[in-house]
Amino acid sequence: MRRARIPEVSVRRLPVYLRVLTELAEQQVEVVSSAELARRTGFSSEQIRKDLAYFGAFGTRGVGYHTELLRTRIRQILGLDRDVRAALVGAGNLGTALARYVLTRDHGVRIVAIFDSDPRRVGAEIAGVPVRPAEQLEDACRRLDVRIGIIAVPAQAAQQVAERLARAGVVALLNFAPVRLRVEPPVHVQDVDLSLALQSLAYYAAAGSAAPLAVERPAGEG
Amino acid sequence: MRRARIPEVSVRRLPVYLRVLTELAEQQVEVVSSAELARRTGFSSEQIRKDLAYFGAFGTRGVGYHTELLRTRIRQILGLDRDVRAALVGAGNLGTALARYVLTRDHGVRIVAIFDSDPRRVGAEIAGVPVRPAEQLEDACRRLDVRIGIIAVPAQAAQQVAERLARAGVVALLNFAPVRLRVEPPVHVQDVDLSLALQSLAYYAAAGSAAPLAVERPAGEG
Repeated sequence: MRRARIPEVSVRRLPVYLRVLTELAEQQVEVVSSAELARRTGFSSEQIRKDLAYFGAFGTRGVGYHTELLRTRIRQILGLDRDVRAALVGAGNLGTALARYVLTRDHGVRIVAIFDSDPRRVGAEIAGVPVRPAEQLEDACRRLDVRIGIIAVPAQAAQQVAERLARAGVVALLNFAPVRLRVEPPVHVQDVDLSLALQSLAYYAAAGSAAPLAVERPAGEG
Repeated sequence: MRRARIPEVSVRRLPVYLRVLTELAEQQVEVVSSAELARRTGFSSEQIRKDLAYFGAFGTRGVGYHTELLRTRIRQILGLDRDVRAALVGAGNLGTALARYVLTRDHGVRIVAIFDSDPRRVGAEIAGVPVRPAEQLEDACRRLDVRIGIIAVPAQAAQQVAERLARAGVVALLNFAPVRLRVEPPVHVQDVDLSLALQSLAYYAAAGSAAPLAVERPAGEG
């Protein structure tokens, strides 16, 4: 028996397939072709067949994939068939909005603890989850079996928070702080950096303008 | 004269280089090697040299890149040397937090207008920027020369908002709504989908656990 590691780019696409398959299941569509999945996700049919083959889901030639089976399989692969527990660290403006967003949507990941170092925020509730003092982070995360940490603290505090979460057994981090976190395997970090996203969009904003800011090269090169 | 298109993956890395170069400039480091940039960004030296070569920035062999020159060049490429104006559509919890986050940081992109379709939100101010009625979207975006649109409306409203922004000349969209937007070139979309991010992290949370959820293949396959 061998275990296949699924590449990160494919893992990132699995929730997109899951969303489309959930829509199809609600519409009682029993079988879906890779071409239809391509139309609905924006990925190519080839890419989709390759991604799904990683975990042994092969469509029936000329027919397609069984919607409900594939949906169940992807939920299993992602671990969403079990209770996935997350903690949020940092209950400022952004953290609070993120917590409300996550807590009011059904995506299989549940925030069970919120921490903040500011005593004025401790004791408040966000969508029914109390804000705890930061000192309780390790104990509460271990006790509540937290596996995902959402980091919404200022840049200078993020590395320490990541290390504390890792020590408490948290293996997956969603990082909103504008810093690169240094973590050891098996801890996995995904960054959501709004400043970087806006700055890279500025490139397309400039390129799409009437007087595009383009890169010039002398003819004959590249 | 030919124009080089910079690949999207490289464009996404440019703001990371910019952040590191800004730190180096503040520390009055005049020259930086690709090895040092690699250490600080987490990208490989080869990747960095390749990215920077796209826009004609070649380091001096055995010396490195001139920090301030490279920083200025990347700001130009990204269009951040000019005033980049953004509008936010949707002033709910998430939209308001995003607006505060963006407005209180200096990253070269400035939110100049906020829109909401809920009359109860119109007239409020978020970090000094008034919330306008959604009907004013096209007029205000054109008048204020908005190039980037930040979409923080519910899923079912997002496509229509994207189309209205595009008609008003907005060419780059940062989309927080959990839907795939259909847009025509030159409009460019970058999605920030928190549900998808959490779901893909659940994979690593499961994989990193004591009883890993791994994919099994019969021996001899793959």
